Amino acid sequence: MEDQVNDPIATLLTTYNELNSASIETLYEEPSPLEFMRYVARNTPFVVRGAASGWKACQEWNAEYLKAALKDSEVNVAVTPYGNADAPTPLPDTDLTVFAKPHEELQPFPSFLTYLQQQSSLTVPLPPSHSEIRYAQTQDNNLPHEYALLASSVPPSIPFARIALSRLPDATNLWIGNSHSVTALHKDNYENIYVQVLGQKHFVLLPPVASPGVNERLLKGARYKRSDKGELELVLDEDGGEVPFAMWDPDVPEKHATKYSRLVRPIRVTLDPGDFLYLPAMWYHKVSQTGCADEGICVAINYWYDMEFSGPLYCLDTLVRSVDEKRKAEENKNDGVE
Amino acid sequence: MEDQVNDPIATLLTTYNELNSASIETLYEEPSPLEFMRYVARNTPFVVRGAASGWKACQEWNAEYLKAALKDSEVNVAVTPYGNADAPTPLPDTDLTVFAKPHEELQPFPSFLTYLQQQSSLTVPLPPSHSEIRYAQTQDNNLPHEYALLASSVPPSIPFARIALSRLPDATNLWIGNSHSVTALHKDNYENIYVQVLGQKHFVLLPPVASPGVNERLLKGARYKRSDKGELELVLDEDGGEVPFAMWDPDVPEKHATKYSRLVRPIRVTLDPGDFLYLPAMWYHKVSQTGCADEGICVAINYWYDMEFSGPLYCLDTLVRSVDEKRKAEENKNDGVE
Repeated sequence: MEDQVNDPIATLLTTYNELNSASIETLYEEPSPLEFMRYVARNTPFVVRGAASGWKACQEWNAEYLKAALKDSEVNVAVTPYGNADAPTPLPDTDLTVFAKPHEELQPFPSFLTYLQQQSSLTVPLPPSHSEIRYAQTQDNNLPHEYALLASSVPPSIPFARIALSRLPDATNLWIGNSHSVTALHKDNYENIYVQVLGQKHFVLLPPVASPGVNERLLKGARYKRSDKGELELVLDEDGGEVPFAMWDPDVPEKHATKYSRLVRPIRVTLDPGDFLYLPAMWYHKVSQTGCADEGICVAINYWYDMEFSGPLYCLDTLVRSVDEKRKAEENKNDGVE
Repeated sequence: MEDQVNDPIATLLTTYNELNSASIETLYEEPSPLEFMRYVARNTPFVVRGAASGWKACQEWNAEYLKAALKDSEVNVAVTPYGNADAPTPLPDTDLTVFAKPHEELQPFPSFLTYLQQQSSLTVPLPPSHSEIRYAQTQDNNLPHEYALLASSVPPSIPFARIALSRLPDATNLWIGNSHSVTALHKDNYENIYVQVLGQKHFVLLPPVASPGVNERLLKGARYKRSDKGELELVLDEDGGEVPFAMWDPDVPEKHATKYSRLVRPIRVTLDPGDFLYLPAMWYHKVSQTGCADEGICVAINYWYDMEFSGPLYCLDTLVRSVDEKRKAEENKNDGVE
């Protein structure tokens, strides 16, 4: 108690935990736009089981369908050695942890998918023939462009979100991978509707107030490049730029913890085919996946809607961060690190 | 800039000002429940001009109508010497500023109203016959109870708010006074729809993040009591309890200012008969009033709906307060005041 009187962030996290549910709300039919807006106002996630079951994508897509639809297409594939695209990663032969961006290359879609399928049943250590982790994860509104031939299988927007937020999605993204890829804990300034099509996605969710517990550090950027021998090498970006990134992994909570990590309550939810997840703006999420039983691939679609920057949410995040920054600066000063 | 890097509250207020409008949004017809919910989500006030013009209360109420309807009623009247019910007030013969509660007494409604009317055109100093300020302002769901005979003149709830918030009002309150009463700056944990019926109300509004600028102090409670001679005397409460109350008055901004008051941007709006004001939860408001031209009385109704405590708003307020408390404690310590 004494601790919290003197510690605004501990008080905040305790208050948040008292007033907000520790588990996700489950719906069995889509909310109305008004019901959705209540969740947006509360910045509270929910899952809708089976909401997309009737979509053509959920009814008809499988590996054979996708290969046929995109038989002549080349697609952008993110390639990494460990499924660690956009994740904190040790830079070999240094003490640095860097933000590792994937090697990106165009691959014929059918052979990309066959590779995912063949690899999906393999376990680590992977054989040399399938040692690369590949993931179609361009988050640039790829569905109506790169994957335009598939776009008619899903609605162009989610009606309850489009009506509630009074806007079209800023991006609609298709994700195709297998269980070897994990998306590291991060957050986006978007309201996000995530729709599972094949396989499962396993989300770990943390609210925006968790920022002092996720141990964000400024990481130098690096990108995997394919060497002349075809091997992946992680190369530091030349621009020297740094990105803030969460070092804490809620699945390994002892490592990289801050004094506040123990006050953060992760919410876990698994999406099955046809499920929707409302992932509210600025929520941290770590995402792992399981390929569907028959074919080993995991396919999902998400709709990003611009978030509202007026009102309490963004200001809360701003204040949490500046309070935590000030606290860290003072602790460093007291430690003589200045 | 340097100032703000080290000052999370200054950063917060600057960010808030950059992202939120400095003036109130004006609508000319009622919002839909969904449109209203977008304002609730943004915790942003608006006014709807003329929305209640068709109400029976706005069409038919005047002094004569009210006196006839309540000709046999006694009503609870708040009585003070300066129109300072529930306001910070110097306690005579001491150095104390106290939270002054009004003397409350039952008065026959017609004579209460006649007193308001006769007094309305008088200026300070008031003559002995009209030196008391009287205000019918019981905020205890008085319309369906104390004023049940008037309740059918207004709807039992505001449809867009009832539907959006999925609840009935927690209280519906009638306010009858004249220009000599002012409600001091304060806030309520309610979503509030305020409806003007006769005369004008003049609101000064500050968002919840303004709390470090309003200079809240713990004030001992006191209440006006009518002496044997009929005079009003302010008597300290015996229980010794204290209430936190804003000392800063946005209309006298130099006095009682904190280092953050200058970063607070008050929003001013005047309600005319038939206007709605959405006063979002936790917004500070100071309210003064002008009697209607013919009859000198000011009549309004407000609907209080329970606010949502989950989500970002309440947590933002909690954090702002605890950061400001900690800062003040540290400043006192540095000043050797400890």
